[in-house]
Amino acid sequence: MKATATANANIALTKYWGKRDKKLMLPNNGSVSMTVDGMHTKTTVEFSPSYEKDIFIINGKEIGEGNAYDKTVKHLDLIREKAGIREKAKVMTENNFPTAAGLASSASGFAAITLAASKAAGMNLDKRELSIIARRGSGSASRSIEGGFVEWQKGEKEDGSDSYGVQIAPPDHWGFRMIAVITSTAQKKVKSTAGMAQTVDTCPYYKDWLATVQGDIDAVKQGIADKDFTRVGSTAEYNALKMHATMITTKPPIIYWNDATMRIMHSVMGWRDSGLESYFTMDAGPQVKIMCLEKDVGEITKRLKDIEGIEDVVLCKPGEAARLVDDHLF
Amino acid sequence: MKATATANANIALTKYWGKRDKKLMLPNNGSVSMTVDGMHTKTTVEFSPSYEKDIFIINGKEIGEGNAYDKTVKHLDLIREKAGIREKAKVMTENNFPTAAGLASSASGFAAITLAASKAAGMNLDKRELSIIARRGSGSASRSIEGGFVEWQKGEKEDGSDSYGVQIAPPDHWGFRMIAVITSTAQKKVKSTAGMAQTVDTCPYYKDWLATVQGDIDAVKQGIADKDFTRVGSTAEYNALKMHATMITTKPPIIYWNDATMRIMHSVMGWRDSGLESYFTMDAGPQVKIMCLEKDVGEITKRLKDIEGIEDVVLCKPGEAARLVDDHLF
Repeated sequence: MKATATANANIALTKYWGKRDKKLMLPNNGSVSMTVDGMHTKTTVEFSPSYEKDIFIINGKEIGEGNAYDKTVKHLDLIREKAGIREKAKVMTENNFPTAAGLASSASGFAAITLAASKAAGMNLDKRELSIIARRGSGSASRSIEGGFVEWQKGEKEDGSDSYGVQIAPPDHWGFRMIAVITSTAQKKVKSTAGMAQTVDTCPYYKDWLATVQGDIDAVKQGIADKDFTRVGSTAEYNALKMHATMITTKPPIIYWNDATMRIMHSVMGWRDSGLESYFTMDAGPQVKIMCLEKDVGEITKRLKDIEGIEDVVLCKPGEAARLVDDHLF
Repeated sequence: MKATATANANIALTKYWGKRDKKLMLPNNGSVSMTVDGMHTKTTVEFSPSYEKDIFIINGKEIGEGNAYDKTVKHLDLIREKAGIREKAKVMTENNFPTAAGLASSASGFAAITLAASKAAGMNLDKRELSIIARRGSGSASRSIEGGFVEWQKGEKEDGSDSYGVQIAPPDHWGFRMIAVITSTAQKKVKSTAGMAQTVDTCPYYKDWLATVQGDIDAVKQGIADKDFTRVGSTAEYNALKMHATMITTKPPIIYWNDATMRIMHSVMGWRDSGLESYFTMDAGPQVKIMCLEKDVGEITKRLKDIEGIEDVVLCKPGEAARLVDDHLF
């Protein structure tokens, strides 16, 4: 009744922004992401009659109450229900990157706990089923079950059974790279869930976000298939700007960018104009993820050293799918 | 046949963004502005048979060709046609603030030349006629003929005869102030005219900008009438963010903000949260104009000293209408 899984974070090339069903975590629009090698969560789950309540330990610290604890218990309940068991669980989880600072720790976290807990509960679920359950914990977690380049299909059904992540291309498909540039490790003021809800409710531009997202998804998918970096990078950058424009025009406005974000955005545009092809994307936070080809990683990393306000730089290669491992955390 | 006029710049509280008629400079939407005391253009115009061609001297430097010269000649032609004269003119003009860096020098410039040239050509036009002619040189110049708080009515007629600036409230109406914070005096890469055209042509959010602008105008006008600073400031800030969101999502994206712009925006939001009520607005450039009440000018000016990347700070009070003066520049 014990299992351990690792899952990688993912970075969206076209963004998920807005839910059509908050309980089932069904999105208003599909999205495409790259699963990221090296930014991962490792989680061990054990169900046992000896636990009187669910125990949740994250990065060595027991979390006994609050939002993170409640979400974890709810997710375990979902898995217990599916497996037909009642035992409480001990969950120990470790992230190797900053939590809740726009680096999608909830995606790798819910992907890892879904795989570990379902296995510990005696189930052998396929990727589709795992993705659907992971989605219930955090929408973007549906994309972290698979490796490489993944599309989270929006789906049409009310029960969410057709809304899950599907691999578009494997990790070794091409030399596409992302460089995550950390400009602040502070917890963000407005979490994604609240930001999304506020945007859907108050942004006058949101319906045109929805009206244009599918075109971006199609362009990015075709670009990946064709190994057309310009198409993928320019579409992804534009999609991110469109998403941030909906945040900026929400009431009250949500501005996730900081001054370093702005410096990096202008630098990337300048590099591109002078022949070093690169693009940027940002999620619900001030970090910038620079898209480039493998051959340019060295030059870009070097140039980043001259920009003020950067706390960390992490090279992101396409990563593998979530998987079970033998070395348990307890 | 010689006359001199001064006209003040203006700063929009709700923005003009997009033309429905490029030749007549008719806007897609109305706008509201404050005419600014102290940021002015002074222009002397003399029509004389002794000039073989139009002479244009700006800040002491003769401009003999190029876009600025052509636009000036075209504007003189308009006035010559209306006055029924053929003489060429000498135009000498001086700005007391940086040209083309997002501080609306074209607004005060075309307002001043319209008043000086029409008078030098023997006409005594009323403010409505002056505003309509000034508008042909630069849309926002239609708002610099009047003083205080001005609405540029969009108008409906094809000939533009109902699209001009009207005073909403005189300069001494209330203690509303703007603090112009100059973050860069470099000429901007994309001029307003090009930026507008690109937005109208390519931005998926532009139609919702248009759909929501009238509500902002009504709110700002009512706020001015009621001397309700919160309503005017919050609406103006939101309107500016909505305009910038259309620029950011234009193809290719136009990002006028720089890192100092972003620092100032976040500072203003922070000050507001802690009880120092202030709002920001930005035009097609990286400068920030902070809106506040007269009583808070000192505290805000003091706090601005701690922000990096500020080149200059200019206090803007509501200013007077364009007027004829006796001290000619030549």
